[in-house]
Amino acid sequence: MALGPMRRQAAADDDGLAARRNIRSGLHRGPTAGLAPGFVQGNLAILPRALAADFQRFCRLNPKPCPLIGLSAPGDWRVPELGEDLDIRSDIPRYRVWRDGELVAEPEDVTAFWRDDLVSFVIGCSFSFEEALTQDGIEIRHIAMGCNVPMYRTSIATKEAGPFRGPLVVSMRPMKPADAIRAVEITARFPAVHGSPVHIGKPELIGIADLAKPDYGDAVPVNDDELPVFWACGVTPQSVVATVKPDFCITHYPGCMLVTDRKNAEFEVG
Amino acid sequence: MALGPMRRQAAADDDGLAARRNIRSGLHRGPTAGLAPGFVQGNLAILPRALAADFQRFCRLNPKPCPLIGLSAPGDWRVPELGEDLDIRSDIPRYRVWRDGELVAEPEDVTAFWRDDLVSFVIGCSFSFEEALTQDGIEIRHIAMGCNVPMYRTSIATKEAGPFRGPLVVSMRPMKPADAIRAVEITARFPAVHGSPVHIGKPELIGIADLAKPDYGDAVPVNDDELPVFWACGVTPQSVVATVKPDFCITHYPGCMLVTDRKNAEFEVG
Repeated sequence: MALGPMRRQAAADDDGLAARRNIRSGLHRGPTAGLAPGFVQGNLAILPRALAADFQRFCRLNPKPCPLIGLSAPGDWRVPELGEDLDIRSDIPRYRVWRDGELVAEPEDVTAFWRDDLVSFVIGCSFSFEEALTQDGIEIRHIAMGCNVPMYRTSIATKEAGPFRGPLVVSMRPMKPADAIRAVEITARFPAVHGSPVHIGKPELIGIADLAKPDYGDAVPVNDDELPVFWACGVTPQSVVATVKPDFCITHYPGCMLVTDRKNAEFEVG
Repeated sequence: MALGPMRRQAAADDDGLAARRNIRSGLHRGPTAGLAPGFVQGNLAILPRALAADFQRFCRLNPKPCPLIGLSAPGDWRVPELGEDLDIRSDIPRYRVWRDGELVAEPEDVTAFWRDDLVSFVIGCSFSFEEALTQDGIEIRHIAMGCNVPMYRTSIATKEAGPFRGPLVVSMRPMKPADAIRAVEITARFPAVHGSPVHIGKPELIGIADLAKPDYGDAVPVNDDELPVFWACGVTPQSVVATVKPDFCITHYPGCMLVTDRKNAEFEVG
């Protein structure tokens, strides 16, 4: 084990721990896309203990938008199931701090905001299945274009738990029909990172009036020989939390995710 | 084992062997849909040995339309991998006999036509995955309507092997988008019975001009909130064989399949 730290220091950000240490020390700032290829990244929601039981139940009831991959003990900034030497207060490049539903700060570290009653929820993210799709030769339009995935609020209601309720948010990736079928097969094997799509082909049926006007992210073109394919999106819990307006809440800044020690391949089933 | 025959006689057609014996004895005539629920049924193509190697290669190259689940030795009317006491000459309710590509007979038994050089190919059939879809609560339109599944020749070419070539034939089932996604997930687990769809949503992209005019089977309505979902179809090899016009060939009469001793569940993977 004596060689461990040296090896870690020598590594750039090619594994989850190295990436977190680079983030923590300020060596890496900004979006985490592309960091530590093959390692799972997660969405973050930190809530006061008083809301934690209801939010955990919300995740259980809505596993497609809210696949819970990590959960801390109250007040504990560690999430051992996701990584060794993980400090949820400092290991994300940028945070958003909310009071009564209002954004009050976007710091690079939330140690100063920490409270003994905070519970961290880490929710699976589509980076994991996008890696599997790309490895299978399927083009991901927003990645090819170098922009954010387009996301839409839908007319599909999440299942409510206590105060948590609101519409399902979906991300959209246009694909040729044969690729869409393969994408269903591939993403179905990743239930912990949103799983198979929730809709395909007819956006108007799920309350999306205009694909060119996403509610979050950037619009991408859908060609005549393609179908829009929709996956449940990890923005759903942030949207729901914003509706609830908890007295205090911390989330990750969009695109600045938690990089974990878990491998994407570990999340593949079947 | 002494009770075996009595049990078999007492059974109606609730397993594959009982169904075959009822067919062989003339107790059951006509289509096999609904016989021996849970047991695999198969499409049949019997070819002279001179063509068998090419046709076997054709099946290997085109596993979605031609999933080979049983293969006999030349001249042998048994297919042990599919069932005990199985006589391919008499265990199908009705056959079609072809000479030089022309239909010459539709007998209920082909013992009189048997030759020492004939090789039997049994190819998986969509009955198996339709059972899985129905068990998952997905409506199959043509079953609900009591008609045949609509089938279409496509612009997708099969991979050729020797003289065997021609267009892929697909079957179509209309489904709501969420059901279509589940259907992809379910049928992907049955690669030996056509597997996942080959197309979804845009028939014109695969050379189908009018869904209301199938090339085989019966038209079924596709509602505004549904997508047409297309699977590779076991009619493909019959269509290809008809193109090749072998000097001699036997196939099953449409809807009159071989009922086997294998269970649909055995063909589920993953």
